[in-house]
Amino acid sequence: MDVEPEALHITPARLSALSDGVIAIAATLLILDLKAPAAGQPVWRTLGHQWPALDTYAVTFLVIGIAWIHHHNLFHQVRQVDRTLLLLNIGMLATISFLPLPTATLGSHLRGIGATSAAVLYALSMTASALWFTLFWNHLCRHPELLHPGAREQARAARRKSLLGPAGYALAALLALVSPMGSLALCAALVAYFVIGRRAPPTRT
Amino acid sequence: MDVEPEALHITPARLSALSDGVIAIAATLLILDLKAPAAGQPVWRTLGHQWPALDTYAVTFLVIGIAWIHHHNLFHQVRQVDRTLLLLNIGMLATISFLPLPTATLGSHLRGIGATSAAVLYALSMTASALWFTLFWNHLCRHPELLHPGAREQARAARRKSLLGPAGYALAALLALVSPMGSLALCAALVAYFVIGRRAPPTRT
Amino acid sequence: MDVEPEALHITPARLSALSDGVIAIAATLLILDLKAPAAGQPVWRTLGHQWPALDTYAVTFLVIGIAWIHHHNLFHQVRQVDRTLLLLNIGMLATISFLPLPTATLGSHLRGIGATSAAVLYALSMTASALWFTLFWNHLCRHPELLHPGAREQARAARRKSLLGPAGYALAALLALVSPMGSLALCAALVAYFVIGRRAPPTRT
Amino acid sequence: MDVEPEALHITPARLSALSDGVIAIAATLLILDLKAPAAGQPVWRTLGHQWPALDTYAVTFLVIGIAWIHHHNLFHQVRQVDRTLLLLNIGMLATISFLPLPTATLGSHLRGIGATSAAVLYALSMTASALWFTLFWNHLCRHPELLHPGAREQARAARRKSLLGPAGYALAALLALVSPMGSLALCAALVAYFVIGRRAPPTRT
Repeated sequence: MDVEPEALHITPARLSALSDGVIAIAATLLILDLKAPAAGQPVWRTLGHQWPALDTYAVTFLVIGIAWIHHHNLFHQVRQVDRTLLLLNIGMLATISFLPLPTATLGSHLRGIGATSAAVLYALSMTASALWFTLFWNHLCRHPELLHPGAREQARAARRKSLLGPAGYALAALLALVSPMGSLALCAALVAYFVIGRRAPPTRT
Repeated sequence: MDVEPEALHITPARLSALSDGVIAIAATLLILDLKAPAAGQPVWRTLGHQWPALDTYAVTFLVIGIAWIHHHNLFHQVRQVDRTLLLLNIGMLATISFLPLPTATLGSHLRGIGATSAAVLYALSMTASALWFTLFWNHLCRHPELLHPGAREQARAARRKSLLGPAGYALAALLALVSPMGSLALCAALVAYFVIGRRAPPTRT
Repeated sequence: MDVEPEALHITPARLSALSDGVIAIAATLLILDLKAPAAGQPVWRTLGHQWPALDTYAVTFLVIGIAWIHHHNLFHQVRQVDRTLLLLNIGMLATISFLPLPTATLGSHLRGIGATSAAVLYALSMTASALWFTLFWNHLCRHPELLHPGAREQARAARRKSLLGPAGYALAALLALVSPMGSLALCAALVAYFVIGRRAPPTRT
Repeated sequence: MDVEPEALHITPARLSALSDGVIAIAATLLILDLKAPAAGQPVWRTLGHQWPALDTYAVTFLVIGIAWIHHHNLFHQVRQVDRTLLLLNIGMLATISFLPLPTATLGSHLRGIGATSAAVLYALSMTASALWFTLFWNHLCRHPELLHPGAREQARAARRKSLLGPAGYALAALLALVSPMGSLALCAALVAYFVIGRRAPPTRT
């Protein structure tokens, strides 16, 4: 009853589709940590007190959105799934599913005495999420037979670029020791950079 | 690790399918804000006290249902996804995922002193949800190369019609300042109109 | 921005797949209404006190499972989706998504003074869920052009059989006035009947 | 309105895809039982107190991940779905959907006086989850006409191997009577074994 990739018949498209399900659910569950003002509570002031939670909600939502895009992009290059890819994928999904917890923690602590700890936890969770992509690309660069023929050059470039995420978020974890708010701002800046992206040189039309 | 649409290979069908996942989950999570009568509470009276929550549940469920239909319809016309469509889509999904919060807020405040604020928040959230479609169609009209050849005329008509939603909901936000209940009624009327629709002239058979 | 079925391009397969998403989520969310014994509470006794909740969980899970099978079966016969089918489908999904609430209510009231009300609410919700299928088949029998050519005879038989569900559950709602426990037992019996089924005459091989 | 497999047109691929939805949601809902440290609570110490919950979260997430892989693998061998497979599948999904409850129970009781009961409940739930696969393979071995022609030999091997899961988890349930912590450790060891797997003899290239 062990997992034999040769016998699994899990195609990259299938693995990608299933992972998408987990990612979509994790993103949507984030809202459950935002508490709607209860009957009798002033609406705007209660929401205003939650702005750190709204901020971290937005940042985490975008982080998960970017993870989804990278994940989709990665598995588009993959020709065959092996056991290691399967394990890395389970690890990545577990990390993504875990993100609502540090998000809620930072949301409720950003303006209190636990702000430093919460910001460190948050940035480290982001680092962990991003690190899986480096591990993915590293494995694919070492086993190019898993890639589509034309994707090997791209994989090396993707591995190089995939270091920016973990490095940036790890820096945010360090920054959290000095300024929790600055750490969240750096995470937001990294997310904005990934969303808006660099102007890529026109390689294809 | 930035997002290059040329390299993304995200087809409209795929983006549509993934968005459907988020939309379906957001719709289903709405029920979590309705509290089942606890042991010892009278069943019908407790539910009766929640009728504003039941009303807003029904309205938001239909709003999300309509957003799903529009989203599906829109991406059916799209031939190629570019970076802007991707960003607009992430924004729209974040807005849809956020709807349970204003829904729960209005549900619990509609009969209390916070009714005005809650109804304004609710109608503004609806306005924001509907506005994305205007932004989508506007971008597609300016970049007709992203559309299927036959869809350009339809896109201009869709852009024109897509203004009704945000305008109507913004009016509901204004109306909320005078009558919160009237504002919810206007939202419900807009939803009913979108669901039942105008009698379209028979353009095709 | 109104819904024009001719312009919607929503195929039966697509509508079926999307509905499956909502149905799967509704089924899985049921577990959230079962409370795990908290730290310090005796495990088995706390669960034992919840047996009505466990029972209703099981019955509702099966009801949703059967609704899924019927829904799938129904849309397999459909060749084209019109506006009415779309509206009926939204109504059915809203009803299914609503089921966690009566389920939790019955689970927490079955052994208390609110048992009658809770059982009536539960059986009426089941009736409503089942009734959509009668409405679906009725519409399809009146508009056979929406069906695949060979499916017209089957649709008339399905309409006839689809009356059993609402009738049975409505009977359970009446029975609840006398015996809440008997009402749940009748619902369970109906579910078991639908799951296990009659021995169908061998019409095809 | 009964379920006639001949009339159901449910293909193995479709049943597999739908089950994946339920499985993905169950895995993602696990996070809801981990409580983020509230405002004012010390972040690390509160999380530290939750380490049993974090442990059981990780183990259950992996168990569900493995169940998904086995389920996918199983239905890949199936050529035709009959009524029994459908019933077994509903049972398996109900069991998987139920796992968040014993997981949360063990997470909150592992260090208290209810540890034994909670660990027995947890290991028995795992046993039940794993047992469905034995029942699946057993049915398929008795009805080889439901399998793809080349899969009959594999099915017999899979049935043999599928006994390891239930047997191991049942042993963990017994062990829980002596050592709850040891029982969780055994579950974790079984999961690790299934994830990492035996070195399979190279049967194909």
